[in-house]
Amino acid sequence: MNHSQLPATLPTTDRTRHRRLREQGSLDRAALDAILDAGFICHFGVVINGHPMVVPTVYGSDGRNLYFHGSVASRSLVASPDATICVTVTHVDGLVLARSVFEHGVNYRSAMIYGLPRLITDPEEKLEGLRCLTEHATPGQWDYARQPNRKELAATALLAISLDEASVKIRAGSPEDGDGPDAAPGIWAGVLPLVSTWGEPEADPLLPDGIEPPKHIGDRSGTRLG
Amino acid sequence: MNHSQLPATLPTTDRTRHRRLREQGSLDRAALDAILDAGFICHFGVVINGHPMVVPTVYGSDGRNLYFHGSVASRSLVASPDATICVTVTHVDGLVLARSVFEHGVNYRSAMIYGLPRLITDPEEKLEGLRCLTEHATPGQWDYARQPNRKELAATALLAISLDEASVKIRAGSPEDGDGPDAAPGIWAGVLPLVSTWGEPEADPLLPDGIEPPKHIGDRSGTRLG
Repeated sequence: MNHSQLPATLPTTDRTRHRRLREQGSLDRAALDAILDAGFICHFGVVINGHPMVVPTVYGSDGRNLYFHGSVASRSLVASPDATICVTVTHVDGLVLARSVFEHGVNYRSAMIYGLPRLITDPEEKLEGLRCLTEHATPGQWDYARQPNRKELAATALLAISLDEASVKIRAGSPEDGDGPDAAPGIWAGVLPLVSTWGEPEADPLLPDGIEPPKHIGDRSGTRLG
Repeated sequence: MNHSQLPATLPTTDRTRHRRLREQGSLDRAALDAILDAGFICHFGVVINGHPMVVPTVYGSDGRNLYFHGSVASRSLVASPDATICVTVTHVDGLVLARSVFEHGVNYRSAMIYGLPRLITDPEEKLEGLRCLTEHATPGQWDYARQPNRKELAATALLAISLDEASVKIRAGSPEDGDGPDAAPGIWAGVLPLVSTWGEPEADPLLPDGIEPPKHIGDRSGTRLG
């Protein structure tokens, strides 16, 4: 993705200003892009009848916008145009095991994006957004699989929000009680890493013999997500 | 956990009734418990100034309640007593790669819980909730690490919600276009699994030589999360 025209620092708003644990906050656009590029599932937050609703869903990013899709009958999607949503993408990298329970924590990378979703209805833009979504989760798949037809496009709702209002939090490294009184008793401290890895492709049992996974799928096995 | 006195079927409310993709919905309490037991990070949704805010945070479950903790200065925690929150726990199990883009999807297990958080102030109940949180993420750690003192307890906000209003969605298995016209062109279809695994413990560089990870931490390496 070419983000060269975008400022390297994220603008802040009252919602995205880091208030606590400021050392974990980042205003670096490259950090935002890296977190979004590393995953494909977000938690999509909307307000429905005054209450929050948090739904896991697939996203795609083109560096300027996030795209989401779903059935045109989806409650969370239909409720969201013209109302602010909050979308959070989180990668969990490990448990931070300190000497004291109080200093325990999690190593993670997280991006939170606020936006007013736009329902995309223009057929060409819709196809482009769906391509972005598909390629984001599985690069190479848009040209390999059968692309959506007119009926399928009509049954799909596609939303986009801009990445203009975003914040990033990252926690990495060791626990922080290694130079205080809790270091004395000889309690082990460190990080227990958590790693997400793509497994071997599992063929659909209905697939005829002799059809092998394409290279863009097979090559992912054994590689890390993010 | 002993859940024997709880009904095996989750009650439904207007918010937790499955409306779409009903085949993916489950009202099985054991499925809810399994999803909660398999993870330790949720996405915590609150409404702040009319807008949703979705924050990744650690949770613990005792089978009846979910516990959350944070700084007493946390916006999302302080805003949430007396207002409904929505907490979602999601495990991503793989990409569902169909013959058609339209049938693509994700294998996942997800639980969504609505509740009115209760701020826990009783010192004994607070300590018990923090024990649940700590043991949920790292069984064995509460008795191994140094437990919170009075000052640390005062700096920690602990919230609980009941598990009474919850719903579960699970998608597993192969794509669903294996017996239609899209099966003809010979496109590979199946699942690309995603697996989360605990790595080798990484000692804090400040740890003196000779202190080995305790068994409850070391034994997790190489095991799967969830």
